[in-house]
Amino acid sequence: MSDIFRPLTLDSRADPLYNLYVRSGTPLATTPQHSAPVAVLLSQGDEVVTGQTVDTNAAWLAERLVDLGFDVRRHVTVGDRMVDLVVALTELSSTADVVIGTGGLGPTMDDLTASACATAFGRPLELDPDALAFLEALFARWGRPMADSNRKQAYLPQGSTRLDNARGTAPGFAFEHGRAWLAFLPGVPHEMKAMFDGLVVPSLTQRFALTPGRLVSLRTTGVGESVLQDRIGAFEHDGVVIGTRAMSGECLVKLRFDASVDPSTVTALTQDVADRIGSPVYAIDGLDAPGGTLPQVVGRALLARGATLAVAESCTGGHLSALFTSVPGSSAWFLEGVVTYANASKVARLGVPEPLIATHGAVSEPVARAMAEGVRASANTTYGIGVTGIAGPDGGTTDKPVGTVHLALATPHGTHHHLLRLFGDRGRIQTYAAHGALDLLRRHLHGVT
Amino acid sequence: MSDIFRPLTLDSRADPLYNLYVRSGTPLATTPQHSAPVAVLLSQGDEVVTGQTVDTNAAWLAERLVDLGFDVRRHVTVGDRMVDLVVALTELSSTADVVIGTGGLGPTMDDLTASACATAFGRPLELDPDALAFLEALFARWGRPMADSNRKQAYLPQGSTRLDNARGTAPGFAFEHGRAWLAFLPGVPHEMKAMFDGLVVPSLTQRFALTPGRLVSLRTTGVGESVLQDRIGAFEHDGVVIGTRAMSGECLVKLRFDASVDPSTVTALTQDVADRIGSPVYAIDGLDAPGGTLPQVVGRALLARGATLAVAESCTGGHLSALFTSVPGSSAWFLEGVVTYANASKVARLGVPEPLIATHGAVSEPVARAMAEGVRASANTTYGIGVTGIAGPDGGTTDKPVGTVHLALATPHGTHHHLLRLFGDRGRIQTYAAHGALDLLRRHLHGVT
Repeated sequence: MSDIFRPLTLDSRADPLYNLYVRSGTPLATTPQHSAPVAVLLSQGDEVVTGQTVDTNAAWLAERLVDLGFDVRRHVTVGDRMVDLVVALTELSSTADVVIGTGGLGPTMDDLTASACATAFGRPLELDPDALAFLEALFARWGRPMADSNRKQAYLPQGSTRLDNARGTAPGFAFEHGRAWLAFLPGVPHEMKAMFDGLVVPSLTQRFALTPGRLVSLRTTGVGESVLQDRIGAFEHDGVVIGTRAMSGECLVKLRFDASVDPSTVTALTQDVADRIGSPVYAIDGLDAPGGTLPQVVGRALLARGATLAVAESCTGGHLSALFTSVPGSSAWFLEGVVTYANASKVARLGVPEPLIATHGAVSEPVARAMAEGVRASANTTYGIGVTGIAGPDGGTTDKPVGTVHLALATPHGTHHHLLRLFGDRGRIQTYAAHGALDLLRRHLHGVT
Repeated sequence: MSDIFRPLTLDSRADPLYNLYVRSGTPLATTPQHSAPVAVLLSQGDEVVTGQTVDTNAAWLAERLVDLGFDVRRHVTVGDRMVDLVVALTELSSTADVVIGTGGLGPTMDDLTASACATAFGRPLELDPDALAFLEALFARWGRPMADSNRKQAYLPQGSTRLDNARGTAPGFAFEHGRAWLAFLPGVPHEMKAMFDGLVVPSLTQRFALTPGRLVSLRTTGVGESVLQDRIGAFEHDGVVIGTRAMSGECLVKLRFDASVDPSTVTALTQDVADRIGSPVYAIDGLDAPGGTLPQVVGRALLARGATLAVAESCTGGHLSALFTSVPGSSAWFLEGVVTYANASKVARLGVPEPLIATHGAVSEPVARAMAEGVRASANTTYGIGVTGIAGPDGGTTDKPVGTVHLALATPHGTHHHLLRLFGDRGRIQTYAAHGALDLLRRHLHGVT
């Protein structure tokens, strides 16, 4: 409980926000202040603030800015309302070295960013002749008349630097206000990303002395976030942020190291976390170790030994083949997949004996083994995988509830079987079953249990 | 250009934020003020503010709150830093009727939400005996000793109402401060969602007289966001927010109607937008019309006519089968899928004549047709689909660049062919090719071109 009552530091009182807001007189506990320049993000749009759109721009920009060496401290999202935008701009510009805004640069009435900057920073809108010429040329090329609403996009806040948008009609702009440098980009992700990398990053690296940190990701499969957190346990080191991110069928453990952490400590701490987790770690991205996705790791191992693969799927319905064929060049080792949804198809395509299905049911260890062996034989490959299970929502019984999945791996030296008991909806069960099958092969190829 | 210089309204000056911040003296243009109660969101966590995690919680909560009838005006994200959290809490609580916070309730030192509330609102932390008993029972059931760090989770801000968490160790809490009601929930999505729906929503509906709006989504495929926006053109109606959301292989057009919009106008405006878009609209969610995903729509049409389907895929590598089998009950109409990645497999499994491949290449109209007809014949189904193409990044030529995809649909009355020329990375090409094949069948079944 010492963390609740741990010694309180007062250095946060130097923060301008502190003087602006905090009147309670209570001393503040605070984490160490970074010396890196502070960056904040402003996302604008009714579609974002109402949740119609998930704000992936903010995460993308935050990660990029942290990679560059900024201390990203705040994101603010507001809708298409002038007062909210002006308030957010005023506040963010007074507390950060860099403000990156996205959205609100389009041609419609609810695109208010330039007007809001005019109001917030006393920079009346002025026609940028080059921006207008660019728009006119664009519409001439499209053979369409240019609407007045597009002409509006050529008006930028006085004294700002135009940021050209090679992929759309909305130019961005940037200017200084007090301690802050502010840049505004369109909300369309591919336009925003191209402009950030091409135009904003060079300005930032020129303007600030940045010391980038380092990101290392441990890729795991077969266990959930809570198990991972249990295995990792207490992990607190200065200059390291640890987080987990569940993705379909697997989980990333991400370690972000400040620039102050030396490379040997990065390696040692990463190895420590990998050791705590154990065999679910199948790859590490961001170190010298070869990284990659689970299908890439498996594909690399197959390729290294000149082995080939065919799969027979029932409940995963094509997901397993899709995972393998997501790897560029997979045609070198993935020869064939069969989605045998109907029992007749299991018999005709794979040679699964009909009595086996009649005796044990289609979802059973013997049928999974027969599918794996059948597809291996008929496709003439080194390995064959068979998957049969109940993805739901219907079809479950007391003996074989929804989520029962039998996996089999046929090898030149016999067939292995693994039973999964999964929960969740149909999509989750299909995804986890496919990853389970991948992992069965991964563990066989890598010799881990 | 009238929108830049349109008459300015001053009603925003009544906004408390206005008086707090806006000192420029410039009158503000503003969109109409809503009369709905104002809700704001606070997301906390280094992993969110640094972009390690995409903040899907905020979008989920915003959509829920808008559905309930709130005017969601602002999201703020801060990291695990006390001063940033206290500042955000102070600011948000002074400008909103409802504040929903997520994250920062865990057992570790960087979980600061309760302490920050103590500081910001003068509510010292107090042990909640029931919360402690709950945690002790939980750890007893797990057969594990309870750490002091978990005991910390039983300390809640003085006078707050505990929000029990049936799915984790972190209880939430809620209290009033001034005009605002604040509720704090864990950041783990499934815990947060269960607690919001089970504990927060009842409090909100009891506390506020809410008039919920309505959300209608038009599901489209085959065209991108920019084409959709061009077709829709100018669309400005009071009380309606329109947005597009690109998803893998398709695009949603979302219309959010305020409660003030009457049902016949909802229907008429939706129909207007659907007419502007035309045949790419394959379903409408939120009206009386049957909605659903593209595989669901196709599956429903197949089921209605007692038809069955088999597919033969090359470049999509199982994605197409996976889309069909994502539909519960698809085993009634989806009989078999074959992923014939190797040419030998196309010959052996589907009876594609070897000379056809030798003459035209594996990626060609004749081979796509032979694959569709071959899988239809061998699986004995009503329809057969064949897909062959170049997903890249390698394998493209001048004649057949990466992204060339031949689709064929074999029917009882002949075989249809469609050529796609896609761009993007391997995953995008596989996804769009699979959706293209689905849409070929959808258009055939629905008789649209």
